[in-house]
Amino acid sequence: MVKQNRREFIKTSLGQAAVVAALSPLAHGESRKTRSKKGIPLKGPIFNQDSTQFFYDHAADEINGEVVDAWVDSLAGAEVGTLMSNTCAMRANYASKVWETDWHGYDPNGPDDQPVLKYLPKDDIPGTRRRLDSVKKLADMGINFHERAFARCRKNGISCWTSVRMNDLHDCDLEDSPLLSTFYKEHRHLIRVPYRASSWMDRALDWSHREVRDHYMKLLREQLEMFDLDGIELDWMRFGYHFGIGRELEGGEILTQFVGEVRKECQKAAKRLGHPVMLGVRVPSTPETARNLGMDGVAWAKAGLIDLLVPTPFWATCEFNMPMDTWRGLLNGTKTKLAGGLEILYRPMPGGPADGNTPELAAGAAMAVLAGGADFVYVFNYFSWIYEPLRPILKAMAGIKTLDKLPRHHAITYRDVLAPGEPDGHQLPATGGLSTFRLQTGPKPTGRQVEVILELQGEASPPGVRVNGVPCGAPKSENGKVFVFPVPEESLADRCHVVEVTSAKPMTIVRVEFAIGSRAS
Amino acid sequence: MVKQNRREFIKTSLGQAAVVAALSPLAHGESRKTRSKKGIPLKGPIFNQDSTQFFYDHAADEINGEVVDAWVDSLAGAEVGTLMSNTCAMRANYASKVWETDWHGYDPNGPDDQPVLKYLPKDDIPGTRRRLDSVKKLADMGINFHERAFARCRKNGISCWTSVRMNDLHDCDLEDSPLLSTFYKEHRHLIRVPYRASSWMDRALDWSHREVRDHYMKLLREQLEMFDLDGIELDWMRFGYHFGIGRELEGGEILTQFVGEVRKECQKAAKRLGHPVMLGVRVPSTPETARNLGMDGVAWAKAGLIDLLVPTPFWATCEFNMPMDTWRGLLNGTKTKLAGGLEILYRPMPGGPADGNTPELAAGAAMAVLAGGADFVYVFNYFSWIYEPLRPILKAMAGIKTLDKLPRHHAITYRDVLAPGEPDGHQLPATGGLSTFRLQTGPKPTGRQVEVILELQGEASPPGVRVNGVPCGAPKSENGKVFVFPVPEESLADRCHVVEVTSAKPMTIVRVEFAIGSRAS
Repeated sequence: MVKQNRREFIKTSLGQAAVVAALSPLAHGESRKTRSKKGIPLKGPIFNQDSTQFFYDHAADEINGEVVDAWVDSLAGAEVGTLMSNTCAMRANYASKVWETDWHGYDPNGPDDQPVLKYLPKDDIPGTRRRLDSVKKLADMGINFHERAFARCRKNGISCWTSVRMNDLHDCDLEDSPLLSTFYKEHRHLIRVPYRASSWMDRALDWSHREVRDHYMKLLREQLEMFDLDGIELDWMRFGYHFGIGRELEGGEILTQFVGEVRKECQKAAKRLGHPVMLGVRVPSTPETARNLGMDGVAWAKAGLIDLLVPTPFWATCEFNMPMDTWRGLLNGTKTKLAGGLEILYRPMPGGPADGNTPELAAGAAMAVLAGGADFVYVFNYFSWIYEPLRPILKAMAGIKTLDKLPRHHAITYRDVLAPGEPDGHQLPATGGLSTFRLQTGPKPTGRQVEVILELQGEASPPGVRVNGVPCGAPKSENGKVFVFPVPEESLADRCHVVEVTSAKPMTIVRVEFAIGSRAS
Repeated sequence: MVKQNRREFIKTSLGQAAVVAALSPLAHGESRKTRSKKGIPLKGPIFNQDSTQFFYDHAADEINGEVVDAWVDSLAGAEVGTLMSNTCAMRANYASKVWETDWHGYDPNGPDDQPVLKYLPKDDIPGTRRRLDSVKKLADMGINFHERAFARCRKNGISCWTSVRMNDLHDCDLEDSPLLSTFYKEHRHLIRVPYRASSWMDRALDWSHREVRDHYMKLLREQLEMFDLDGIELDWMRFGYHFGIGRELEGGEILTQFVGEVRKECQKAAKRLGHPVMLGVRVPSTPETARNLGMDGVAWAKAGLIDLLVPTPFWATCEFNMPMDTWRGLLNGTKTKLAGGLEILYRPMPGGPADGNTPELAAGAAMAVLAGGADFVYVFNYFSWIYEPLRPILKAMAGIKTLDKLPRHHAITYRDVLAPGEPDGHQLPATGGLSTFRLQTGPKPTGRQVEVILELQGEASPPGVRVNGVPCGAPKSENGKVFVFPVPEESLADRCHVVEVTSAKPMTIVRVEFAIGSRAS
């Protein structure tokens, strides 16, 4: 089970400070009623934009339709293939007629202790107000963010999807918050682990109740009737837990039926629009966990219900060793496309410190996904990567060839979503005299610098390292904690490297990366 | 990596004391040249008889062809569907013309310190001599054990397969032993982890060397030319490690080619015999580990190379939670049958104490396999289960319906074969204030007694237990260590149960079983 730190959550998941580059010249506004003649096919990289980020980044006094257009142009400049435009956490970020909006109950002229603000930590209030002022202002101007963005996407050849968070839980432990819907507050008796409710995940709504499903179906229907979209995504990974403990397999049958109903709504929308409207899902990173939590993406694919399946971690850390091969094999004989989901944080150990992914780590994670057989890379919380200096990394995620030119790091992390009762299996911290790590490293990295980076806890003598059985030379270290070992050419292999670390004295390893330098072109 | 205790190994894997019931009346000898008109299809339960057990159980002064027949009749009485007759560890247990025999270099009239015996522990010598005297005697009588057994199997409708251990390592740390081949002793420089060689697994022959592959191919060809067999099994799980660390994926391509060559030999044999000769493999219990160790059973199935795939643990413990669903899904679109392998030991924790499976545990493991979608149950080291009183359990392994009538236990154990660097993920001992376990339990066990059995380390207060979120009543305990909790009917579910254990004080859980009583019929 995931333990999350609320403040950190808000900061990274909802309010990550974006590197906003100088905006492109504004384009002329487009007709809001534009309907495409044909759809735009699903392409990679797939970029998820969360429902709040744009409004954190653009204050009310500068926001307008042209700012939305310019932002889409930045997506195009980063060669994003598909936009997953997230429409909601517990509330809609556009003027929905069937769900409350983000600004519902918020008085821009009211004080900081008005009902929807007063339970927030003091430090969060200014940013929240900035966001709410902005999202309200755009709506008040009569602009629907997604409609506007999609029209611009079509000009740029970007595939247009909405993404719906199917059980968002931000702030669910507060009495009130702009992130909480009245529906949630009035249905707290329907949470999935009522006898404990110690974590956010425990407080997720239990999807075995019809009123929960109906609540979400309303929003999905609205979007399928409102937008000119190429697809809609059911984001089951916000927050990934939808049923009581031990009730997830039964629950999976309920979700399968629900996904089937959404599929029918997509078909209606396709008829209305005259082009395909695809259906996608985000699910946990392994087939067993997905199935054990009721998100049986493989069953949905085999039943012909979905066009896109995205295995992904939740949030605490990016995963570098997802079993894409197994997913690929299970989708055999279906038409469902496969994308691997990258999160933005890098956290080697459960409960340990996290950083944002470096360009090298993101390239490594993306390479592992594509080399494992995925069709696309899917990035979540990578808001600032559509701008320089990170833009080239996002662009390179289009394919193995472009990624292989970049330096990349493959790192040991862990799976942050497990079904209750599944073995944990995190590998760090690793203790003892012999530790072994396996990383999915993509094409054989010949003719370039390759290193193993190890971080030990406390000052320690350098351990011995072998890669694929071949001893590495003496390491460099600046501080006696982080050691960088040169990896001999003869140890290199396609697809995977195994790192053995030995030490006469017991050691504690807290970070392991396999670092591949730029390719000499 | 598996750590094995040599003496325990020998006792349980090679010399388990069989419960030998009064033998059936001896039948008349059959012509050794009998060839069946048509083959006998693969059926379950599948019974592996190791290459030494029969000769441990039957001394030289009583052995003859009729004893072999009577033993086969006991298989028939237990309704075994398929016999996997194991022909070899490092040596053949029949008069092979291409491999050394078990009795090679052994002088029945020689002393205990003759070369092949003198490195054995003193206590092992009498049993070893008994076995060697017996296997040699039968061969000296001109009887080929497998030929004789297969002829009798055909009369009984039992499918006839030989099973070849592809990298057996018994006694590999000794200078000499009747279990070591000259080939092995002369090729110790070809072991897979030469720089360490601390465990038996490290000393496995590295299959990337052609001479290793050729050595095994010789034996396979002989058997395909010698016997009237319905199939041949490549037992890659004795001992499961065939390549250098990090070289297993490259190795997998070598094994795929090898399996393809054996497939061609099977086709030749089928032509000779006029009936199908199938090909089977035993591989590690999860698709990822199998692939990561070079035993990519799914790839072999998809290439049409194999008829039977058997995921299985190695030896240290039976597994109750193998991902049969995933295996089934991956075989989709192939003709390959799927069997789940049951080992005989029950060991909740790595390095912890082990018992033989009880009837209830064996029934639980078999149920998990079939309910997960396997076609058959495959038992290994279940020598005594063809006789009363265990015979009814083996019979019931034919199907879910028959198994469901029996009491069964589903238990937390661990995976005893991992690719180097894969996360370990064992769950016991479990420490702390909240522990959660998930077990694959087959059809919903309504209308019968259901209990959770917990063993704690040291004297402890009884913890609280929930099953699928429903609290269990007060437990019974005879010794303050093992607690038996009644499971409420309303908690029960199809396929899976999740057990949550809570305690105000930290506890250490060392055994977890989900116990289902007999079905009232």
